[in-house]
Amino acid sequence: MKGALLFAQSGGPTAVINSSACGVFQEAKKHPEITNIYAGLYGIDGVLSGNIIDINKEDDEQIELLKQTPSSALGSCRKKMPDYKKDEAPYKALIEVFKKYGVRYFIYNGGNDSMDTCNKVAKYCKLVGYECAVVGVPKTVDNDLASTDHCPGFGSVAKYIATTIHEIALDAHVFKNGRAVIVEIMGRDAGWITASAAVPELLNGLGADLVYVPEKPFDLDKFTQQVKEVLDKNYTCVVAVSEGIKDKDGKYISEYAGDNSHKDSFNHVQLGDVCFFLANHITKHCGTKARAIELSIVQRAAAHLASVSDREEAYNCGAEAVKHAVNGANNVMISMQRVSSNPYKIEYVPADLDHIANAVKELPDEYITEDCSGIKPAFLDYILPLIEGEAPVQYKNGIPRATVLKKVIVNPDNN
Amino acid sequence: MKGALLFAQSGGPTAVINSSACGVFQEAKKHPEITNIYAGLYGIDGVLSGNIIDINKEDDEQIELLKQTPSSALGSCRKKMPDYKKDEAPYKALIEVFKKYGVRYFIYNGGNDSMDTCNKVAKYCKLVGYECAVVGVPKTVDNDLASTDHCPGFGSVAKYIATTIHEIALDAHVFKNGRAVIVEIMGRDAGWITASAAVPELLNGLGADLVYVPEKPFDLDKFTQQVKEVLDKNYTCVVAVSEGIKDKDGKYISEYAGDNSHKDSFNHVQLGDVCFFLANHITKHCGTKARAIELSIVQRAAAHLASVSDREEAYNCGAEAVKHAVNGANNVMISMQRVSSNPYKIEYVPADLDHIANAVKELPDEYITEDCSGIKPAFLDYILPLIEGEAPVQYKNGIPRATVLKKVIVNPDNN
Repeated sequence: MKGALLFAQSGGPTAVINSSACGVFQEAKKHPEITNIYAGLYGIDGVLSGNIIDINKEDDEQIELLKQTPSSALGSCRKKMPDYKKDEAPYKALIEVFKKYGVRYFIYNGGNDSMDTCNKVAKYCKLVGYECAVVGVPKTVDNDLASTDHCPGFGSVAKYIATTIHEIALDAHVFKNGRAVIVEIMGRDAGWITASAAVPELLNGLGADLVYVPEKPFDLDKFTQQVKEVLDKNYTCVVAVSEGIKDKDGKYISEYAGDNSHKDSFNHVQLGDVCFFLANHITKHCGTKARAIELSIVQRAAAHLASVSDREEAYNCGAEAVKHAVNGANNVMISMQRVSSNPYKIEYVPADLDHIANAVKELPDEYITEDCSGIKPAFLDYILPLIEGEAPVQYKNGIPRATVLKKVIVNPDNN
Repeated sequence: MKGALLFAQSGGPTAVINSSACGVFQEAKKHPEITNIYAGLYGIDGVLSGNIIDINKEDDEQIELLKQTPSSALGSCRKKMPDYKKDEAPYKALIEVFKKYGVRYFIYNGGNDSMDTCNKVAKYCKLVGYECAVVGVPKTVDNDLASTDHCPGFGSVAKYIATTIHEIALDAHVFKNGRAVIVEIMGRDAGWITASAAVPELLNGLGADLVYVPEKPFDLDKFTQQVKEVLDKNYTCVVAVSEGIKDKDGKYISEYAGDNSHKDSFNHVQLGDVCFFLANHITKHCGTKARAIELSIVQRAAAHLASVSDREEAYNCGAEAVKHAVNGANNVMISMQRVSSNPYKIEYVPADLDHIANAVKELPDEYITEDCSGIKPAFLDYILPLIEGEAPVQYKNGIPRATVLKKVIVNPDNN
């Protein structure tokens, strides 16, 4: 099937999402079936509004630099597509764009909500008889997508968190009069990133003394007691806590602090301030200084510390999506299946989007200690292959280089 | 003069302070005059309490690993020594320790307050006729020590800030509906670290749109207007702000937020929360989402991103301190004098401690824009040689290796 390929990025950025874009673009250039390579700016929003650029107008060197550029170089959005049975308008508009630009391959890179979009678009194309291969490329720092061993983006944030928690712990132990340090880590519904904070402690005995993930109910009194016990023994206590921890009634701990939480456009609660609330609580109840550190967007943007396997896998997922689309795959996401951990081996397999969209893969019980305040050594088998190896980074004037794209807008009337 | 060398670390840790310790220890081993190499744990506090370890009992590999280990591997303190004319007791105690351990070389590694300690100890030794070479090794992320071009510790935090602000800016521009991001950066009295946030914008046009240093009075209304102007033009505004910004009356902006500020043992105001106050202010007055990011201790502990010149210079300052002490220097700090920026060349020169203690080197006016919201390109000549080049890092299991010391306590009665 001859036609244009249209690619876009969606959801929160990661350290390696642009490596997937690089994989899509460099692979697409190899296939004569693909007549043009286009990219929507700001996700599906840009696609719908004709904010579409021509990737063949970009310099090869800048495309190559995508591999080490954090953020979403094409821009992103958080648009949730409606059910087309209830609101067909955006789908009709999308098919118009596809027709106008001759799009026969639609590759969308994102997390749970983006895979839901892929799934809906694929089904709608089928419904109206528009021939288009729709393939999803996984992306999420949260690592909570179903049907894949892990997600591109996760290995790099995990490597950053493991390294940074180790550095924080080294710093926190410098003064004799100890203190508590509460580090807040991303991961709304799944504790994968927070669990990676346990790595330096599990490996070397110095890192996060306590780790709290959102999969288990958080009890404030038990937490206070656990911090006290560490402080009594070591003077210093480093705590890693997920932004999404909830109490046994399902109330977010971030809501304890007051009225800071509010709803975003996905109806997820917007989180934050857990670490400040807990640090104040520890100061009050343990009589110890407590420092709150929210690693915020820094953790997902730290491409200077990307994991080598993560960057390569992000690239490969993009390239595989193109190969499978050209070979007739549709309504699938490229998933990674782990063949073995030692030696580490991954296979790329198209997975049915019907089983992925809106499912959340939580951190399994087997990795969480019985008292719900730590991570078991078994987690190392899973995580180490994902964080081992440092992706090479080109620097200029002391800082990592980043892609600068020309972003030449396509005028389809000239085609 | 034959005798033991005693070394200790003081003040806040840095990414390279342990590289100085490595320089001291490896150089000291070359000099037959130095009969023993000792180190006090937790700074002068450990020295006074006989909490002193034997460095010759440590493995060479672990001493070498000090080069890439952040924090203070020997522990630190923030003790301010009194005027010995008013309170002689701690000085008498110190001389007793020196005699007991046969100390004839005292090398102390720290910032302003530690150089003040060196100065007082050197003078007191002379006063009571105890022969001991006292040499200071500079250390401070703040870069505010007088009589030196820059301080070990600064280049690495500057490299981390320049890289991280670039990564934050890339991330912040991803969504079409812009927002403000307020990044709070260390530097109580001097804007050197905050100024390094200007580097990516000056080099590549993407980084901090606005930079506020403590050397200039901060005006909240002018700030609001400046953020508005950037938002109107670019949708997104990234602000770098020093923790120590003050208004025209000398009141810390962090105090605007309420009663968060309090005094620490040095009578400096303990800062924090500037970024949260400013982010709330922008949300209220510009109608834009604003995110606050406090880089906290993460910035000074990021040895994984150390600058190659910073790590080498930290090492050399330690080694030079030993050489000069052995050659009869006393009451001096090893300073760095810049011979040229291109090619970059530094000379190590002993500087009189009488002129260093308690002086603060501010960011000069020539680097600050007239509207006090940015940094001029002239700053690049100064900063680039300090951040260029990436110090090599040994990793194990995906995270950087760090020194583990045996810390064998010396029993002087066995000597």
